[in-house]
Amino acid sequence: MGIKILTIKEDILGANTELAGRNRERLDKGGILTVNIMSSPGAGKTSLVLQTIARMKTGIKLAVIEGDIASSVDADKVNQRGVPVVQINTDGGCHLDANMIENALDNLPLENIDLLLIENVGNLVCPAEFALGEHMKVMLLSTPEGDDKPYKYPLMFTETDVVLVNKVDLLPYLDFNIDSFNKTVTGLNPDVKIFPVSCKTGEGLDVWLSWLEGEIKKVKNQQSGN
Amino acid sequence: MGIKILTIKEDILGANTELAGRNRERLDKGGILTVNIMSSPGAGKTSLVLQTIARMKTGIKLAVIEGDIASSVDADKVNQRGVPVVQINTDGGCHLDANMIENALDNLPLENIDLLLIENVGNLVCPAEFALGEHMKVMLLSTPEGDDKPYKYPLMFTETDVVLVNKVDLLPYLDFNIDSFNKTVTGLNPDVKIFPVSCKTGEGLDVWLSWLEGEIKKVKNQQSGN
Repeated sequence: MGIKILTIKEDILGANTELAGRNRERLDKGGILTVNIMSSPGAGKTSLVLQTIARMKTGIKLAVIEGDIASSVDADKVNQRGVPVVQINTDGGCHLDANMIENALDNLPLENIDLLLIENVGNLVCPAEFALGEHMKVMLLSTPEGDDKPYKYPLMFTETDVVLVNKVDLLPYLDFNIDSFNKTVTGLNPDVKIFPVSCKTGEGLDVWLSWLEGEIKKVKNQQSGN
Repeated sequence: MGIKILTIKEDILGANTELAGRNRERLDKGGILTVNIMSSPGAGKTSLVLQTIARMKTGIKLAVIEGDIASSVDADKVNQRGVPVVQINTDGGCHLDANMIENALDNLPLENIDLLLIENVGNLVCPAEFALGEHMKVMLLSTPEGDDKPYKYPLMFTETDVVLVNKVDLLPYLDFNIDSFNKTVTGLNPDVKIFPVSCKTGEGLDVWLSWLEGEIKKVKNQQSGN
Protein backbone atom coordinates (compact mmCIF):
# COMPACT_ATOMS: atom_id res chain seq x y z
CA MET A 1 0.00 0.00 0.00
CA GLY A 2 2.88 2.36 0.85
CA ILE A 3 4.30 2.35 -2.69
CA LYS A 4 0.91 2.94 -4.29
CA ILE A 5 0.35 6.03 -2.17
CA LEU A 6 3.75 7.41 -3.13
CA THR A 7 3.06 7.07 -6.85
CA ILE A 8 -0.25 8.84 -6.54
CA LYS A 9 1.37 11.56 -4.50
CA GLU A 10 4.05 12.15 -7.14
CA ASP A 11 1.38 12.53 -9.81
CA ILE A 12 -0.51 15.01 -7.69
CA LEU A 13 2.64 16.96 -6.88
CA GLY A 14 3.68 17.11 -10.55
CA ALA A 15 0.31 18.45 -11.69
CA ASN A 16 0.32 20.92 -8.81
CA THR A 17 3.78 22.26 -9.66
CA GLU A 18 2.76 22.87 -13.26
CA LEU A 19 -0.34 24.76 -12.19
CA ALA A 20 1.67 26.73 -9.62
CA GLY A 21 3.96 27.85 -12.47
CA ARG A 22 0.95 29.22 -14.35
CA ASN A 23 -0.26 31.09 -11.24
CA ARG A 24 3.23 32.53 -10.83
CA GLU A 25 3.25 33.87 -14.41
CA ARG A 26 -0.05 35.61 -13.76
CA LEU A 27 1.23 37.13 -10.52
CA ASP A 28 4.53 38.25 -12.12
CA LYS A 29 2.64 39.83 -14.98
CA GLY A 30 0.52 41.78 -12.48
CA GLY A 31 3.55 42.75 -10.38
CA ILE A 32 1.89 41.21 -7.31
CA LEU A 33 4.24 40.03 -4.57
CA THR A 34 2.62 36.86 -3.27
CA VAL A 35 3.38 35.42 0.15
CA ASN A 36 2.37 31.92 1.28
CA ILE A 37 1.97 32.07 5.07
CA MET A 38 2.22 28.76 6.91
CA SER A 39 2.28 27.64 10.54
CA SER A 40 0.77 25.33 13.14
CA PRO A 41 -2.80 26.07 14.17
CA GLY A 42 -2.89 29.09 16.44
CA ALA A 43 0.65 30.35 15.82
CA GLY A 44 -0.68 33.73 14.68
CA LYS A 45 -1.15 33.70 10.88
CA THR A 46 -4.38 35.70 11.00
CA SER A 47 -2.92 38.18 13.47
CA LEU A 48 0.06 38.65 11.14
CA VAL A 49 -2.28 39.28 8.21
CA LEU A 50 -4.32 41.80 10.22
CA GLN A 51 -1.22 43.56 11.57
CA THR A 52 0.29 43.73 8.08
CA ILE A 53 -2.95 45.29 6.76
CA ALA A 54 -3.04 47.80 9.65
CA ARG A 55 0.61 48.87 9.44
CA MET A 56 1.42 48.67 5.71
CA LYS A 57 2.54 51.93 4.13
CA THR A 58 -0.27 53.89 2.45
CA GLY A 59 -0.33 53.36 -1.30
CA ILE A 60 0.42 49.63 -1.19
CA LYS A 61 -2.72 47.74 -2.18
CA LEU A 62 -3.32 44.43 -0.41
CA ALA A 63 -5.50 41.40 -1.01
CA VAL A 64 -5.86 38.20 1.00
CA ILE A 65 -6.70 34.56 0.32
CA GLU A 66 -7.82 32.72 3.47
CA GLY A 67 -7.44 28.94 3.58
CA ASP A 68 -9.35 27.01 6.22
CA ILE A 69 -10.82 23.54 6.51
CA ALA A 70 -14.08 25.11 7.59
CA SER A 71 -15.53 28.49 8.61
CA SER A 72 -14.96 32.00 7.34
CA VAL A 73 -14.08 33.66 10.65
CA ASP A 74 -10.70 34.84 9.33
CA ALA A 75 -12.02 36.16 6.01
CA ASP A 76 -14.72 38.08 7.89
CA LYS A 77 -12.02 39.88 9.91
CA VAL A 78 -10.11 40.84 6.74
CA ASN A 79 -13.29 41.93 4.99
CA GLN A 80 -14.17 44.25 7.90
CA ARG A 81 -10.91 46.11 7.13
CA GLY A 82 -12.03 46.79 3.55
CA VAL A 83 -9.42 44.52 1.95
CA PRO A 84 -10.42 42.22 -0.96
CA VAL A 85 -10.49 38.64 0.34
CA VAL A 86 -11.38 35.18 -0.94
CA GLN A 87 -12.10 32.38 1.54
CA ILE A 88 -11.17 28.86 0.47
CA ASN A 89 -12.72 26.06 2.53
CA THR A 90 -10.80 22.84 1.90
CA ASP A 91 -13.55 20.69 3.48
CA GLY A 92 -11.12 18.43 5.34
CA GLY A 93 -8.10 19.02 3.10
CA CYS A 94 -4.98 19.73 5.11
CA HIS A 95 -3.33 22.26 2.77
CA LEU A 96 -4.02 24.67 -0.09
CA ASP A 97 -3.00 23.69 -3.62
CA ALA A 98 -2.33 25.57 -6.85
CA ASN A 99 -5.73 24.74 -8.29
CA MET A 100 -7.52 26.38 -5.36
CA ILE A 101 -5.33 29.46 -5.76
CA GLU A 102 -6.10 29.66 -9.49
CA ASN A 103 -9.81 29.78 -8.66
CA ALA A 104 -9.21 32.41 -6.01
CA LEU A 105 -7.17 34.58 -8.43
CA ASP A 106 -10.14 34.52 -10.82
CA ASN A 107 -12.11 36.22 -8.05
CA LEU A 108 -9.65 38.98 -7.11
CA PRO A 109 -9.05 42.40 -8.77
CA LEU A 110 -5.53 41.48 -9.95
CA GLU A 111 -5.03 44.78 -11.77
CA ASN A 112 -5.24 46.56 -8.43
CA ILE A 113 -3.05 44.54 -6.02
CA ASP A 114 0.58 45.02 -4.96
CA LEU A 115 0.75 42.44 -2.19
CA LEU A 116 -1.23 39.19 -1.95
CA LEU A 117 -1.14 37.37 1.38
CA ILE A 118 -2.20 33.72 1.31
CA GLU A 119 -3.00 32.22 4.70
CA ASN A 120 -2.57 28.47 4.37
CA VAL A 121 -4.32 25.81 6.50
CA GLY A 122 -2.76 25.55 9.97
CA ASN A 123 -0.42 22.59 9.59
CA LEU A 124 3.38 22.24 9.81
CA VAL A 125 3.49 19.25 7.46
CA CYS A 126 1.51 19.12 4.23
CA PRO A 127 1.48 22.79 3.12
CA ALA A 128 5.29 22.69 2.74
CA GLU A 129 4.95 20.21 -0.14
CA PHE A 130 2.51 22.15 -2.31
CA ALA A 131 3.70 25.18 -4.30
CA LEU A 132 0.95 27.70 -4.95
CA GLY A 133 2.77 30.05 -7.32
CA GLU A 134 3.97 32.31 -4.50
CA HIS A 135 7.14 34.42 -4.53
CA MET A 136 8.01 33.50 -1.00
CA LYS A 137 7.08 31.13 1.77
CA VAL A 138 6.82 32.64 5.23
CA MET A 139 6.36 30.44 8.25
CA LEU A 140 5.42 31.47 11.75
CA LEU A 141 6.73 29.55 14.70
CA SER A 142 5.16 30.76 17.93
CA THR A 143 7.33 30.56 21.03
CA PRO A 144 4.91 28.37 23.07
CA GLU A 145 5.37 25.61 20.45
CA GLY A 146 8.94 25.10 21.70
CA ASP A 147 12.40 25.53 20.20
CA ASP A 148 12.70 21.86 19.15
CA LYS A 149 10.23 22.09 16.26
CA PRO A 150 12.86 22.29 13.44
CA TYR A 151 14.03 18.76 14.36
CA LYS A 152 10.52 17.39 14.11
CA TYR A 153 9.18 19.24 11.07
CA PRO A 154 12.36 19.73 9.04
CA LEU A 155 10.76 20.11 5.59
CA MET A 156 8.82 23.22 6.59
CA PHE A 157 11.95 24.86 7.99
CA THR A 158 14.04 23.85 4.96
CA GLU A 159 11.49 25.04 2.38
CA THR A 160 10.62 28.39 3.88
CA ASP A 161 12.26 31.69 2.91
CA VAL A 162 11.35 33.51 6.12
CA VAL A 163 10.69 32.45 9.70
CA LEU A 164 8.74 34.83 11.91
CA VAL A 165 9.26 33.87 15.54
CA ASN A 166 5.91 35.05 16.89
CA LYS A 167 4.65 35.65 20.45
CA VAL A 168 8.04 36.86 21.72
CA ASP A 169 6.03 38.70 24.41
CA LEU A 170 5.55 35.28 26.07
CA LEU A 171 9.29 34.48 26.24
CA PRO A 172 9.58 35.41 29.96
CA TYR A 173 7.06 32.66 30.81
CA LEU A 174 8.50 29.90 28.59
CA ASP A 175 11.59 27.70 28.25
CA PHE A 176 12.31 28.81 24.69
CA ASN A 177 15.95 29.47 23.79
CA ILE A 178 15.80 31.82 20.82
CA ASP A 179 19.56 31.69 20.11
CA SER A 180 19.56 27.92 19.96
CA PHE A 181 16.39 27.98 17.81
CA ASN A 182 18.00 30.42 15.35
CA LYS A 183 21.12 28.26 15.13
CA THR A 184 19.08 25.12 14.41
CA VAL A 185 17.04 26.85 11.71
CA THR A 186 20.03 28.41 9.93
CA GLY A 187 21.76 25.02 10.16
CA LEU A 188 18.88 23.49 8.17
CA ASN A 189 18.42 26.50 5.89
CA PRO A 190 21.40 28.89 5.66
CA ASP A 191 19.62 31.51 3.50
CA VAL A 192 16.54 31.85 5.72
CA LYS A 193 15.60 35.25 7.15
CA ILE A 194 14.43 35.23 10.78
CA PHE A 195 12.36 38.02 12.33
CA PRO A 196 11.36 37.93 16.02
CA VAL A 197 7.93 39.55 16.38
CA SER A 198 4.85 39.82 18.54
CA CYS A 199 1.65 40.29 16.58
CA LYS A 200 0.00 41.11 19.92
CA THR A 201 2.29 43.92 21.16
CA GLY A 202 3.60 44.92 17.71
CA GLU A 203 7.25 44.31 18.69
CA GLY A 204 9.48 43.69 15.65
CA LEU A 205 6.75 44.26 13.07
CA ASP A 206 8.34 47.46 11.69
CA VAL A 207 11.47 45.47 10.70
CA TRP A 208 9.34 42.78 9.01
CA LEU A 209 7.26 45.37 7.17
CA SER A 210 10.15 47.44 5.88
CA TRP A 211 11.80 44.26 4.57
CA LEU A 212 8.51 43.23 2.94
CA GLU A 213 8.15 46.64 1.27
CA GLY A 214 11.60 46.12 -0.28
CA GLU A 215 10.42 42.79 -1.71
CA ILE A 216 7.27 44.42 -3.14
CA LYS A 217 9.50 46.92 -4.97
CA LYS A 218 11.66 44.12 -6.41
CA VAL A 219 8.61 42.43 -7.97
CA LYS A 220 7.36 45.78 -9.34
CA ASN A 221 10.80 46.55 -10.84
CA GLN A 222 10.93 43.11 -12.45
CA GLN A 223 7.46 43.73 -13.92
CA SER A 224 8.44 47.07 -15.46
CA GLY A 225 11.71 45.56 -16.73
CA ASN A 226 9.79 42.95 -18.77
CA MET B 1 -8.25 15.69 -10.30
CA GLY B 2 -10.34 16.30 -7.16
CA ILE B 3 -12.56 13.26 -7.66
CA LYS B 4 -9.62 10.93 -8.32
CA ILE B 5 -8.01 11.96 -5.05
CA LEU B 6 -11.22 11.31 -3.15
CA THR B 7 -11.56 7.78 -4.50
CA ILE B 8 -8.02 6.92 -3.55
CA LYS B 9 -8.54 8.37 -0.12
CA GLU B 10 -11.65 6.25 0.47
CA ASP B 11 -9.75 3.09 -0.50
CA ILE B 12 -6.94 3.98 1.88
CA LEU B 13 -9.37 4.77 4.69
CA GLY B 14 -11.26 1.49 4.18
CA ALA B 15 -8.09 -0.61 4.30
CA ASN B 16 -6.91 1.36 7.31
CA THR B 17 -10.14 0.83 9.25
CA GLU B 18 -9.95 -2.93 8.67
CA LEU B 19 -6.38 -3.07 9.93
CA ALA B 20 -7.26 -0.85 12.90
CA GLY B 21 -9.93 -3.41 13.84
CA ARG B 22 -7.29 -6.17 13.87
CA ASN B 23 -5.01 -4.03 16.09
CA ARG B 24 -7.92 -3.44 18.43
CA GLU B 25 -8.60 -7.16 18.81
CA ARG B 26 -4.97 -7.71 19.75
CA LEU B 27 -5.08 -4.89 22.30
CA ASP B 28 -8.38 -6.08 23.81
CA LYS B 29 -7.01 -9.61 24.12
CA GLY B 30 -3.98 -8.22 25.97
CA GLY B 31 -6.15 -5.98 28.18
CA ILE B 32 -4.08 -2.96 27.07
CA LEU B 33 -5.86 0.41 27.24
CA THR B 34 -4.59 2.26 24.17
CA VAL B 35 -4.73 6.03 23.85
CA ASN B 36 -4.17 7.94 20.59
CA ILE B 37 -2.80 11.37 21.57
CA MET B 38 -3.20 14.12 18.97
CA SER B 39 -2.55 17.87 18.83
CA SER B 40 -0.91 20.70 16.93
CA PRO B 41 2.89 20.76 16.97
CA GLY B 42 4.13 21.97 20.34
CA ALA B 43 0.84 21.68 22.24
CA GLY B 44 2.47 19.37 24.79
CA LYS B 45 1.95 15.73 23.70
CA THR B 46 5.43 14.62 24.79
CA SER B 47 5.14 16.49 28.09
CA LEU B 48 1.83 14.73 28.72
CA VAL B 49 3.42 11.35 27.98
CA LEU B 50 6.34 12.09 30.32
CA GLN B 51 4.09 13.42 33.10
CA THR B 52 1.81 10.39 32.77
CA ILE B 53 4.84 8.10 33.08
CA ALA B 54 6.15 10.02 36.11
CA ARG B 55 2.84 10.21 37.99
CA MET B 56 1.11 6.94 37.11
CA LYS B 57 0.26 4.69 40.05
CA THR B 58 2.87 2.00 40.75
CA GLY B 59 1.89 -1.36 39.31
CA ILE B 60 0.48 0.00 36.05
CA LYS B 61 2.85 -0.97 33.24
CA LEU B 62 3.22 1.55 30.43
CA ALA B 63 4.55 1.49 26.89
CA VAL B 64 4.77 4.25 24.31
CA ILE B 65 4.69 4.54 20.51
CA GLU B 66 6.19 7.82 19.29
CA GLY B 67 5.15 9.11 15.87
CA ASP B 68 7.26 11.80 14.23
CA ILE B 69 8.07 12.81 10.69
CA ALA B 70 11.74 12.74 11.58
CA SER B 71 14.02 12.42 14.63
CA SER B 72 13.82 10.28 17.75
CA VAL B 73 14.14 13.07 20.35
CA ASP B 74 10.82 12.12 21.98
CA ALA B 75 11.49 8.36 22.04
CA ASP B 76 14.90 9.05 23.63
CA LYS B 77 13.20 10.91 26.48
CA VAL B 78 10.76 8.03 27.08
CA ASN B 79 13.54 5.45 26.87
CA GLN B 80 15.56 7.31 29.52
CA ARG B 81 12.65 6.67 31.90
CA GLY B 82 12.92 2.89 31.38
CA VAL B 83 9.61 2.57 29.54
CA PRO B 84 9.38 0.35 26.41
CA VAL B 85 9.08 2.62 23.37
CA VAL B 86 8.94 2.28 19.59
CA GLN B 87 9.72 5.29 17.40
CA ILE B 88 7.87 5.52 14.08
CA ASN B 89 9.33 7.97 11.57
CA THR B 90 6.75 8.71 8.90
CA ASP B 91 9.34 10.31 6.58
CA GLY B 92 7.09 13.18 5.56
CA GLY B 93 3.76 11.49 6.30
CA CYS B 94 1.45 13.75 8.28
CA HIS B 95 -0.24 11.12 10.48
CA LEU B 96 0.15 7.60 11.85
CA ASP B 97 -1.89 4.77 10.34
CA ALA B 98 -3.00 1.32 11.48
CA ASN B 99 -0.29 -0.44 9.48
CA MET B 100 2.46 1.48 11.27
CA ILE B 101 0.87 0.60 14.62
CA GLU B 102 0.70 -3.09 13.69
CA ASN B 103 4.45 -3.06 13.05
CA ALA B 104 5.06 -1.24 16.32
CA LEU B 105 2.93 -3.76 18.28
CA ASP B 106 5.14 -6.55 16.88
CA ASN B 107 8.03 -4.83 18.63
CA LEU B 108 6.47 -4.30 22.07
CA PRO B 109 6.14 -6.74 25.02
CA LEU B 110 2.33 -6.92 24.78
CA GLU B 111 2.00 -9.52 27.56
CA ASN B 112 3.43 -6.96 29.98
CA ILE B 113 1.56 -3.69 29.23
CA ASP B 114 -1.51 -2.14 30.88
CA LEU B 115 -1.48 1.26 29.18
CA LEU B 116 -0.17 2.08 25.69
CA LEU B 117 0.22 5.75 24.83
CA ILE B 118 0.51 6.56 21.11
CA GLU B 119 1.86 10.02 20.35
CA ASN B 120 0.64 10.92 16.86
CA VAL B 121 2.34 13.36 14.46
CA GLY B 122 1.69 16.99 15.47
CA ASN B 123 -1.20 17.96 13.20
CA LEU B 124 -4.81 18.99 13.89
CA VAL B 125 -6.09 17.69 10.56
CA CYS B 126 -5.05 14.33 9.12
CA PRO B 127 -4.61 12.20 12.27
CA ALA B 128 -8.33 12.60 13.06
CA GLU B 129 -9.22 10.58 9.96
CA PHE B 130 -7.09 7.49 10.62
CA ALA B 131 -8.15 4.96 13.26
CA LEU B 132 -5.20 3.09 14.76
CA GLY B 133 -7.08 0.51 16.84
CA GLU B 134 -7.07 2.71 19.95
CA HIS B 135 -9.67 2.65 22.74
CA MET B 136 -9.78 6.40 22.95
CA LYS B 137 -8.67 9.53 21.17
CA VAL B 138 -7.24 12.27 23.37
CA MET B 139 -6.46 15.66 21.92
CA LEU B 140 -4.49 18.46 23.52
CA LEU B 141 -5.36 22.04 22.78
CA SER B 142 -2.81 24.40 24.29
CA THR B 143 -4.12 27.77 25.44
CA PRO B 144 -1.73 29.87 23.26
CA GLU B 145 -3.37 28.33 20.16
CA GLY B 146 -6.52 30.32 20.90
CA ASP B 147 -10.09 29.46 21.83
CA ASP B 148 -11.34 29.62 18.20
CA LYS B 149 -9.70 26.36 17.09
CA PRO B 150 -12.86 24.18 17.25
CA TYR B 151 -14.40 26.31 14.46
CA LYS B 152 -11.39 25.82 12.23
CA TYR B 153 -10.54 22.17 12.87
CA PRO B 154 -13.99 20.73 13.64
CA LEU B 155 -13.28 17.08 12.74
CA MET B 156 -10.60 16.72 15.40
CA PHE B 157 -12.90 18.14 18.07
CA THR B 158 -15.85 15.99 16.91
CA GLU B 159 -13.86 12.75 16.75
CA THR B 160 -12.01 12.99 20.04
CA ASP B 161 -13.17 11.40 23.29
CA VAL B 162 -11.14 13.69 25.54
CA VAL B 163 -9.82 17.24 25.26
CA LEU B 164 -6.95 18.22 27.54
CA VAL B 165 -6.70 22.02 27.65
CA ASN B 166 -2.96 22.29 28.25
CA LYS B 167 -0.74 25.20 29.37
CA VAL B 168 -3.40 26.68 31.67
CA ASP B 169 -0.46 28.28 33.55
CA LEU B 170 -0.24 30.76 30.62
CA LEU B 171 -3.90 31.86 30.88
CA PRO B 172 -3.06 35.13 32.74
CA TYR B 173 -0.99 36.27 29.72
CA LEU B 174 -3.43 35.27 26.97
CA ASP B 175 -6.87 36.20 25.61
CA PHE B 176 -8.24 32.67 25.96
CA ASN B 177 -11.79 32.32 27.28
CA ILE B 178 -11.94 28.82 28.71
CA ASP B 179 -15.70 28.91 29.38
CA SER B 180 -16.50 29.88 25.81
CA PHE B 181 -14.01 27.25 24.53
CA ASN B 182 -15.68 24.53 26.63
CA LYS B 183 -19.12 25.56 25.34
CA THR B 184 -17.98 25.42 21.71
CA VAL B 185 -16.40 22.00 22.15
CA THR B 186 -19.37 20.45 23.94
CA GLY B 187 -21.61 21.99 21.25
CA LEU B 188 -19.69 20.01 18.62
CA ASN B 189 -19.25 16.92 20.75
CA PRO B 190 -21.69 16.58 23.68
CA ASP B 191 -20.03 13.43 25.14
CA VAL B 192 -16.48 14.81 25.23
CA LYS B 193 -14.56 14.95 28.52
CA ILE B 194 -12.56 18.15 29.08
CA PHE B 195 -9.66 18.37 31.54
CA PRO B 196 -7.80 21.67 32.11
CA VAL B 197 -4.14 20.86 32.85
CA SER B 198 -0.62 22.22 32.84
CA CYS B 199 2.01 19.64 31.98
CA LYS B 200 4.59 22.20 33.16
CA THR B 201 3.26 22.96 36.66
CA GLY B 202 1.33 19.70 37.10
CA GLU B 203 -1.99 21.47 37.67
CA GLY B 204 -4.99 19.25 36.94
CA LEU B 205 -2.94 16.14 36.14
CA ASP B 206 -4.19 14.21 39.19
CA VAL B 207 -7.78 14.47 37.90
CA TRP B 208 -6.73 13.28 34.43
CA LEU B 209 -4.70 10.38 35.87
CA SER B 210 -7.38 9.13 38.22
CA TRP B 211 -9.90 9.14 35.35
CA LEU B 212 -7.38 7.28 33.14
CA GLU B 213 -6.81 4.65 35.85
CA GLY B 214 -10.56 4.02 35.85
CA GLU B 215 -10.44 3.43 32.09
CA ILE B 216 -7.51 1.01 32.46
CA LYS B 217 -9.60 -1.02 34.92
CA LYS B 218 -12.54 -1.13 32.50
CA VAL B 219 -10.38 -2.67 29.76
CA LYS B 220 -8.89 -5.17 32.24
CA ASN B 221 -12.38 -6.16 33.47
CA GLN B 222 -13.58 -6.62 29.90
CA GLN B 223 -10.55 -8.84 29.22
CA SER B 224 -11.21 -11.10 32.23
CA GLY B 225 -14.92 -11.18 31.34
CA ASN B 226 -14.14 -12.69 27.93
